[in-house]
Amino acid sequence: MSEPLVLTLSCADRPGITARVSSYLFERGGNILEAQQFNDQSSNAFFMRVEFDPGEAARETIRTEFAEIAREYAMDWKLTLRDRPRRALIMVSKFDHCLADLLYRWRIGELAMDPVAIVSNHPQSAIEHTALGEIPFHHLPITRDTKDEQEAQVRQIAEDTGAELVVLARYMQILSDRQAAHFAGRCINIHHSFLPGFKGAKPYHQAHARGVKMIGASAHFVTADLDEGPIIHQAAEPISHADNPDELVRKGREIESRVLAEAVRLHLEERVLLNGMRTVVFRS
Amino acid sequence: MSEPLVLTLSCADRPGITARVSSYLFERGGNILEAQQFNDQSSNAFFMRVEFDPGEAARETIRTEFAEIAREYAMDWKLTLRDRPRRALIMVSKFDHCLADLLYRWRIGELAMDPVAIVSNHPQSAIEHTALGEIPFHHLPITRDTKDEQEAQVRQIAEDTGAELVVLARYMQILSDRQAAHFAGRCINIHHSFLPGFKGAKPYHQAHARGVKMIGASAHFVTADLDEGPIIHQAAEPISHADNPDELVRKGREIESRVLAEAVRLHLEERVLLNGMRTVVFRS
Amino acid sequence: MSEPLVLTLSCADRPGITARVSSYLFERGGNILEAQQFNDQSSNAFFMRVEFDPGEAARETIRTEFAEIAREYAMDWKLTLRDRPRRALIMVSKFDHCLADLLYRWRIGELAMDPVAIVSNHPQSAIEHTALGEIPFHHLPITRDTKDEQEAQVRQIAEDTGAELVVLARYMQILSDRQAAHFAGRCINIHHSFLPGFKGAKPYHQAHARGVKMIGASAHFVTADLDEGPIIHQAAEPISHADNPDELVRKGREIESRVLAEAVRLHLEERVLLNGMRTVVFRS
Amino acid sequence: MSEPLVLTLSCADRPGITARVSSYLFERGGNILEAQQFNDQSSNAFFMRVEFDPGEAARETIRTEFAEIAREYAMDWKLTLRDRPRRALIMVSKFDHCLADLLYRWRIGELAMDPVAIVSNHPQSAIEHTALGEIPFHHLPITRDTKDEQEAQVRQIAEDTGAELVVLARYMQILSDRQAAHFAGRCINIHHSFLPGFKGAKPYHQAHARGVKMIGASAHFVTADLDEGPIIHQAAEPISHADNPDELVRKGREIESRVLAEAVRLHLEERVLLNGMRTVVFRS
Repeated sequence: MSEPLVLTLSCADRPGITARVSSYLFERGGNILEAQQFNDQSSNAFFMRVEFDPGEAARETIRTEFAEIAREYAMDWKLTLRDRPRRALIMVSKFDHCLADLLYRWRIGELAMDPVAIVSNHPQSAIEHTALGEIPFHHLPITRDTKDEQEAQVRQIAEDTGAELVVLARYMQILSDRQAAHFAGRCINIHHSFLPGFKGAKPYHQAHARGVKMIGASAHFVTADLDEGPIIHQAAEPISHADNPDELVRKGREIESRVLAEAVRLHLEERVLLNGMRTVVFRS
Repeated sequence: MSEPLVLTLSCADRPGITARVSSYLFERGGNILEAQQFNDQSSNAFFMRVEFDPGEAARETIRTEFAEIAREYAMDWKLTLRDRPRRALIMVSKFDHCLADLLYRWRIGELAMDPVAIVSNHPQSAIEHTALGEIPFHHLPITRDTKDEQEAQVRQIAEDTGAELVVLARYMQILSDRQAAHFAGRCINIHHSFLPGFKGAKPYHQAHARGVKMIGASAHFVTADLDEGPIIHQAAEPISHADNPDELVRKGREIESRVLAEAVRLHLEERVLLNGMRTVVFRS
Repeated sequence: MSEPLVLTLSCADRPGITARVSSYLFERGGNILEAQQFNDQSSNAFFMRVEFDPGEAARETIRTEFAEIAREYAMDWKLTLRDRPRRALIMVSKFDHCLADLLYRWRIGELAMDPVAIVSNHPQSAIEHTALGEIPFHHLPITRDTKDEQEAQVRQIAEDTGAELVVLARYMQILSDRQAAHFAGRCINIHHSFLPGFKGAKPYHQAHARGVKMIGASAHFVTADLDEGPIIHQAAEPISHADNPDELVRKGREIESRVLAEAVRLHLEERVLLNGMRTVVFRS
Repeated sequence: MSEPLVLTLSCADRPGITARVSSYLFERGGNILEAQQFNDQSSNAFFMRVEFDPGEAARETIRTEFAEIAREYAMDWKLTLRDRPRRALIMVSKFDHCLADLLYRWRIGELAMDPVAIVSNHPQSAIEHTALGEIPFHHLPITRDTKDEQEAQVRQIAEDTGAELVVLARYMQILSDRQAAHFAGRCINIHHSFLPGFKGAKPYHQAHARGVKMIGASAHFVTADLDEGPIIHQAAEPISHADNPDELVRKGREIESRVLAEAVRLHLEERVLLNGMRTVVFRS
């Protein structure tokens, strides 16, 4: 078997797209390993993800030839090596439970990423409980006055490292519109509430004050409109009247960690496609 | 065994309340069957629920004597027969899935209620799929002009039937402030979203538009502030990009039915105590 | 739009199946509405489900032509009208909560079935809480001596009514091997435990005795080996030490009802394909 | 406030226990912070857990005096400092995800334990991804011939360190009956399946072969009868036909980690009481 490829695409829906794509892959000697499609009848859009063994065909040949098909259907598309780890830049503030969880999963081979940099607005000593190993750490403090400059530094690090994904792993800073736009579609945030409930700061205190009976977390793409980006994954758990805000924070850490890790995994495996303000998520 | 009683109470927390209550019951010959308490350290309030077999003691003797203790501690309290079905008035509009579910659970003995009336703003013929049997049905249409009068009729029915509980089982009308105040603490609504997300109308369409990955339902006490009353129970289920609003409505019906039924059961069993804008829920 | 069709198929996996099927549909003027496939790498088997608008093509033409393709790939396949209600025979004993739930969902249009008969080993009077309406009811009592005969009667009713699906909605009788074989692949049972735990009788009492912290239910195809048929759907809920067997039975009813209804819905929509002793379930 | 204490007790149920215990605490000047009780009507047993501020009373005075009450009611009981970290010995084999999770939670203050030793049948180099820091590591390899000796070494370490709790954090060795008896009631195991389904080895492969639609994990006290000890906590998650055994292992790691951590937390907080082959778990 050659190195498997992943093809993702979206375009306006019309008859024959599946036939065209799958016939092309078959003619080229490809063998489909996993495939999903979604015909969004509300927006008349079509989404597809195909993992395939390209057989004898050269990757660049496929890329060139498929570009023709893509043009014909006006597709947004992407062709990548399935098993190549994606370069990820992880941003964090003081709470490192999401970071610790992501790095552990990466180390045991669960997340196919290459963590090229960790950026924090706090010094490395603030990350007490997580071994960073060889991953470069960048302390980029931020104030109202230095925000522009700090964000430029982050963009520079992303460029220098070729970061394909930026993960805000409880990075407690709001990105500027410019920064959000710069990383559009490749920056994932974990919001520690079940959006759209409890936007903004201190969501667990908000949840306690409101007396809800479940709390949750939401992983979403970052957009200029804070807490409003396309949601990738969410989970929630029951709580009771006896859970004070500290208990909610404790229970929340676990939900946040696994919701963010799942969203990152889905993104690394090219399973998340944008559909306007929503996402299409092709789980296996 | 005598007929078991349920005692519920709340008051400012201070040392000795449990001792005082349990010692009294013991001295009177009572035997505790189930007991819970909650010391709310954030508000310094105390909550208790005790099921007990009163033994030889007469119920009215206990009531008279306990009133003394309650006065001493400035308790809100209630003493009732555990197994006496509570009289319930159920209100419904066109969608009868919650009504059907409540009546089925009542018929098989799962809900200890006595449904004294069903009130709808639509004629009985609108409830196509649920056999009402002997339960009196009241068609009380409502318009902007007749709202005051209609609500007065509902209050009259509640009074005539001695309704202890009013269940809004997908009753798609907003109660006036006066009506909400009248039924304060004994009127349960099911909101077909996971509050505080998606308040107001058409929550499933809102959820679809926002692209969330879970939907839920919330049962809460009705207050003047719509969709803001103390929450009794909530549940949520995962959805996917492929669920259109119709699918969400279908999945939602099931969540709504069981969340409302659970809240009603908890209330009928005197397991829900008010704690300001929140609730204390003593599950067995 | 013509009446949509559903095509389901399975065969040994090899390159080009998706291309072959989707190209055929496209050439015939069909338009795919929803499609899923699964390449089972452990068994080298391929599974596909396609909903499509056949456009101008006559259904029988497609059936004839597709039979050629199916032969070429040695497919198991099925082509049906998507929206035609499937004829269902429902079997029940004394507990009617699953029956009530299925009929309610059918009446409000949630389950695209045509309930052609209800068969019980108890008289109709045993079903106290569920209005059967026009659905023919058959009281077929069963004893050790009459089992063969009773099962023959059930087969006869299924044949007379053209039943495509047999639902054991808490039918507390074990089908003979012969009966299980007769209805293979079209008979769904709800087992009131989380298989493979607690096979056999009184699973909630078993669960209580074992002290588990969750209970569940399993909907599966019936096979000769009781409680071992391919599982279609399962769900589970947390319980506590305070739940006695009666409480477990109460909580279980809700899980059973929704697990069975979901399995029936999936089957009615042709979303369940057999994969040896397992199932492939194509959710939308 | 003095250092809070936790009192746990169980005995045969009879009237007046709550009154006796709470009156004693009140008379001694204690203030209840949290209290739960369970009257097990099936076994006529009584269970209680009280967190209280002892006020001016000396701990040893309470201990001496309460011993009298306990004798009177033939109670099993325990009186401990609520906030004193319990000494824990953690055993592990090659897979360190549960160990990593426990240590992370300990480091951020979520688990009030004092990890006095880590014991593995593999060398420390096998634990690649988890920083053990200062915690003493003991490599105690085990073979059929050395099992007795190895277990004696473990008992010695437990004695030397004063271990109050032994956590089998994916320790892939079966304890001998003697060892299980030695650590009875203070040794928690994580079984990577939803007991009682899939006992024994390779439960995820068993689950895949059986085609179940949910997988789970079970934390239980270790007894001589493997996989049959009293269950403390369980959780389960849905899976699909597309999850191969490797996927199940991945999904399972997360469930195992949080189920074990929750069971350990409950035990550390003295919230788990034995009730024959079952447990009573007093969550806050």
